[in-house]
Amino acid sequence: MSYRAPVADIAFTLKHGPGLAPALRQHGGLDADDIDAVLAEAGRYATEVLAPLNAPGDRHGTPFKDGRITMPPGWKEAYRGWVAGGWNAVAAPTEWGGQGLPHALNAACIEMWNEGSMAFGIGPVLTMGAAEALAAYGSDDLKRTYLPKLVSGEWMGTMQLTEPQAGSDVGALRTKAERAADGTYRITGQKIFITYGEHELTDNIIHFVLARLPDAPAGNKGISLFLVPKFMVNRDGALGARNDVRAHSIEHKLGIHASPTCTMVYGDNGGAIGYLVGEENRGLACMFTMMNLARLAVGLQGVAIAERATQQALDYARERKQGRALGATLGASGSSPIIEHPDVKRMLMTMRGLTRAARCICYATAGAIDRSHGDGEAAKAANDRAALLTPIAKAFSTDIGVEVASLGVQVHGGMGFIEETGAAQHYRDARIAAIYEGTNGIQALDLVTRKVSLNGGAVVRLYLDELRRSVKAVQATNDPAFGATGARLSEAVDSLDRATTWLLSKLDKEPQAALAGATPYLRLFGNTAGGCMLADEALTAMRLADGEPAARIAIARFFAENVAVQASGLERAVTEGADSVNSADAALTG
Amino acid sequence: MSYRAPVADIAFTLKHGPGLAPALRQHGGLDADDIDAVLAEAGRYATEVLAPLNAPGDRHGTPFKDGRITMPPGWKEAYRGWVAGGWNAVAAPTEWGGQGLPHALNAACIEMWNEGSMAFGIGPVLTMGAAEALAAYGSDDLKRTYLPKLVSGEWMGTMQLTEPQAGSDVGALRTKAERAADGTYRITGQKIFITYGEHELTDNIIHFVLARLPDAPAGNKGISLFLVPKFMVNRDGALGARNDVRAHSIEHKLGIHASPTCTMVYGDNGGAIGYLVGEENRGLACMFTMMNLARLAVGLQGVAIAERATQQALDYARERKQGRALGATLGASGSSPIIEHPDVKRMLMTMRGLTRAARCICYATAGAIDRSHGDGEAAKAANDRAALLTPIAKAFSTDIGVEVASLGVQVHGGMGFIEETGAAQHYRDARIAAIYEGTNGIQALDLVTRKVSLNGGAVVRLYLDELRRSVKAVQATNDPAFGATGARLSEAVDSLDRATTWLLSKLDKEPQAALAGATPYLRLFGNTAGGCMLADEALTAMRLADGEPAARIAIARFFAENVAVQASGLERAVTEGADSVNSADAALTG
Repeated sequence: MSYRAPVADIAFTLKHGPGLAPALRQHGGLDADDIDAVLAEAGRYATEVLAPLNAPGDRHGTPFKDGRITMPPGWKEAYRGWVAGGWNAVAAPTEWGGQGLPHALNAACIEMWNEGSMAFGIGPVLTMGAAEALAAYGSDDLKRTYLPKLVSGEWMGTMQLTEPQAGSDVGALRTKAERAADGTYRITGQKIFITYGEHELTDNIIHFVLARLPDAPAGNKGISLFLVPKFMVNRDGALGARNDVRAHSIEHKLGIHASPTCTMVYGDNGGAIGYLVGEENRGLACMFTMMNLARLAVGLQGVAIAERATQQALDYARERKQGRALGATLGASGSSPIIEHPDVKRMLMTMRGLTRAARCICYATAGAIDRSHGDGEAAKAANDRAALLTPIAKAFSTDIGVEVASLGVQVHGGMGFIEETGAAQHYRDARIAAIYEGTNGIQALDLVTRKVSLNGGAVVRLYLDELRRSVKAVQATNDPAFGATGARLSEAVDSLDRATTWLLSKLDKEPQAALAGATPYLRLFGNTAGGCMLADEALTAMRLADGEPAARIAIARFFAENVAVQASGLERAVTEGADSVNSADAALTG
Repeated sequence: MSYRAPVADIAFTLKHGPGLAPALRQHGGLDADDIDAVLAEAGRYATEVLAPLNAPGDRHGTPFKDGRITMPPGWKEAYRGWVAGGWNAVAAPTEWGGQGLPHALNAACIEMWNEGSMAFGIGPVLTMGAAEALAAYGSDDLKRTYLPKLVSGEWMGTMQLTEPQAGSDVGALRTKAERAADGTYRITGQKIFITYGEHELTDNIIHFVLARLPDAPAGNKGISLFLVPKFMVNRDGALGARNDVRAHSIEHKLGIHASPTCTMVYGDNGGAIGYLVGEENRGLACMFTMMNLARLAVGLQGVAIAERATQQALDYARERKQGRALGATLGASGSSPIIEHPDVKRMLMTMRGLTRAARCICYATAGAIDRSHGDGEAAKAANDRAALLTPIAKAFSTDIGVEVASLGVQVHGGMGFIEETGAAQHYRDARIAAIYEGTNGIQALDLVTRKVSLNGGAVVRLYLDELRRSVKAVQATNDPAFGATGARLSEAVDSLDRATTWLLSKLDKEPQAALAGATPYLRLFGNTAGGCMLADEALTAMRLADGEPAARIAIARFFAENVAVQASGLERAVTEGADSVNSADAALTG
């Protein structure tokens, strides 16, 4: 029943996914063997070290007493071993001690850390995002002091946006920053839902905190970003006094119990010392540097929990015997492994197909981020592609994470509802990923209002053309093993195309109508793009006679014929459903 | 944030749903005022007594020590008050102390008990089922001794089918029953997952246990049903010695923590004394009497958890302010209640629509059960209707229970993931209902292999005709408030019709293909029937100018345009998806 990192599957998608070969090539000298070596080693750590910590971490949680948090047994050692392996530094800049490897390769590793344990994986994701923001916006002085240790993971970082009245609406935050005479700032206020806000995995914790200057404009344009260390850092790099920030309490959560979620209090004694990152009142832009990477990483959490739940359900379905499947070999002991029952097979294929589709989307997004680094038209186009795909990578992957984890419980029957089986933990853990780093509703609004309209719709149109090429390629094979894959994907792309045209026509004139369809539009996009990418993978595997072509064809076909076929219903919900949403008030009383 | 029993909505569906008026009329003397009085009183008990126990019950659980279970504080008093109110006896036969009221009315009450607390509600459901089976199959002697107290609820009953190797495949059970010289039996063996198998809410617990005689044929045809009291009952009705059955342990579950789920051991000292119910080797038929009612009741749990989650999400969405909705009143304090954001509105309408549709289906099933009592063609037809709808009532309602509870978490954002909010408990509790009393996959197979084929398909065809009448009635209104309701429902019925024809053509020749589409077929059926019933309700409310016609039209329209539109995708999954399921083996390795 134990998790095994799906290294071969990951390597295949990473090497052959859309735009990934050029992304990996950009980082000179990285060949297929290098990639395989990194993935194998990451897979080993995730499988052997992290995965066994997952259930005990869930049971232990992170007890909080007198301002201190006790991490579950073994977690500190696992984190330190992980840092020693260089895993925090995979994609970080070489000038600060990073390995400068592609984000796409790091994305594959992030998936595996989260397969090992979502509660473990979310911490480093925030540290990596913090390092990225500091590298992009920090002063040289701040970088010299903090960046090497955030890059290595010797210190962890946090992202602090949320306050009780400021969740999705970050602009409503009230934490105060006052200028001090020495050029630093004094931070006072309260932050909630701070992931890994306090712990003793590392000797210091570097908080990245959004706050408002006394003379700042209201809303999003009056937010500044501050670096606030838990312990002050002396000139010589040694740790100094404790800063005026503390964890006040932790949350009792549905899942990821081993990830401490803290309420943070700033300014018991006059204010925590903070250092400005970037310019005053431009903090949201800096934070968005972290957010985009964090959003992709949370999408990868969705892939990860789906993969782990699928593996567990497959193992159970092969071992558990109930009833006799139609056509089961006569003379067998009387009952069949439940994997032989068609309804169970459908559940497992749904799990596998959704997981693989989400992985394709996330890796394609990571590749676009890699290709966006640099100048020129190609980099600009890649930047647009990353912008377009990021909300889909986040929301689609985490929605299917919840769905797949729920199916995982169902495959287990009554055993799925018993906590010791482990399927229920995935169902609980998966749920947060659809919420944090921007709820999936916020992702859908981002997609519809900011991304579809990029370059007047040219960015999304270019992507639709790419999907059509995938469809044509499947259709051109005329291979009966694909069943109706080509036809169903073609219809899905048509639906996505019409829904896109409709949205573009509404955004200015009837934004309320466009907003009402944002969530089904995002799902339509994810299903369609995911379906096309699975078909691409099948074609690639056939061409290479590698990567289990028969399996990939079966997955592509199942997905096209059973999932992508939702397209017409989703299109309708987008293009015809808005009135029924916006005239619903009478039904939402009582 | 507290639950309020939706008495008016329940009363409307109960009085006006398909086939319900005649069901209620069958029970002479019951008028609309009587119904309202019962519902109001049940609603009061659920709201004021049961609902406040739900969260504390979740936290407390049912600690098990030395064979005894400690129920959460207040639960014993709540149960006894509930019994004193006569609530266990609502639909039980008058000759045994029951009130003889319609099952449909009892169904409405069962919904409310489960809205108050699912962990509370599941216990009585099993007692009622046990009483029903005993009334139908027990000897006069057994009935005299046990039935009055099972009817009143003074003693609770359990249903004991599952063993480690016998879950969905009941026929694999091994618990032994040996004939004793005095005409009783000695039961030895182990049962698992026994709901309310042990507790001290009542002085005695009457177990209904499936076991196998030494000379019984293998499989389903060798199973007998036994009544096994926890305490023996003397001739004078007083409790005697403890029987040779005990709870060995309880499960640590994902949800319904206040419902003790026990492993039961029979025969530490030679065997528990059991009394045969019905005939030897005919136990499964007796148990199915209980199962069908229990399946409907579990469907009602799905409705209940969906209703409670919807109420909680609505309350939160009205209070929580974030961002400014498009078109929000200028001069407002700057942020809007999130219910004003279209994406949140879509979530809430999805919750409300699915909940209401499931309620309609469950109550229609209950009404058919009422109408099936008696002789003649009408009773036979009602019996067929109940048989057809039961798997849909169970599986559709519990699937949407999970979906709605998950949306409830999502509406709450980060707060939804915090246990104290309560939304997460619904998400955890809801999950079991899709599993127990026959997994939803088993329900789908029952629908496809036994129900669709009833009378060669005539039963389902008759139902399709009824749905078409609903469609025509909506179309005939030409009321623009319905939007595309008529057209979308018409397409959904067409899809269901074609999928049904396809299934009927495959059942004999290619059963494997039919089985592969069972789950999407059941969902297609639920969406379509639910959509038509919501439209019926809207039309009824318009005609009566009562029951909030504007709200009901809005719900019917939203459902038709955003949920029922999944029909074409589901139809395809049924009629074209089977090959991709049954040729999936290559993709389910690894």
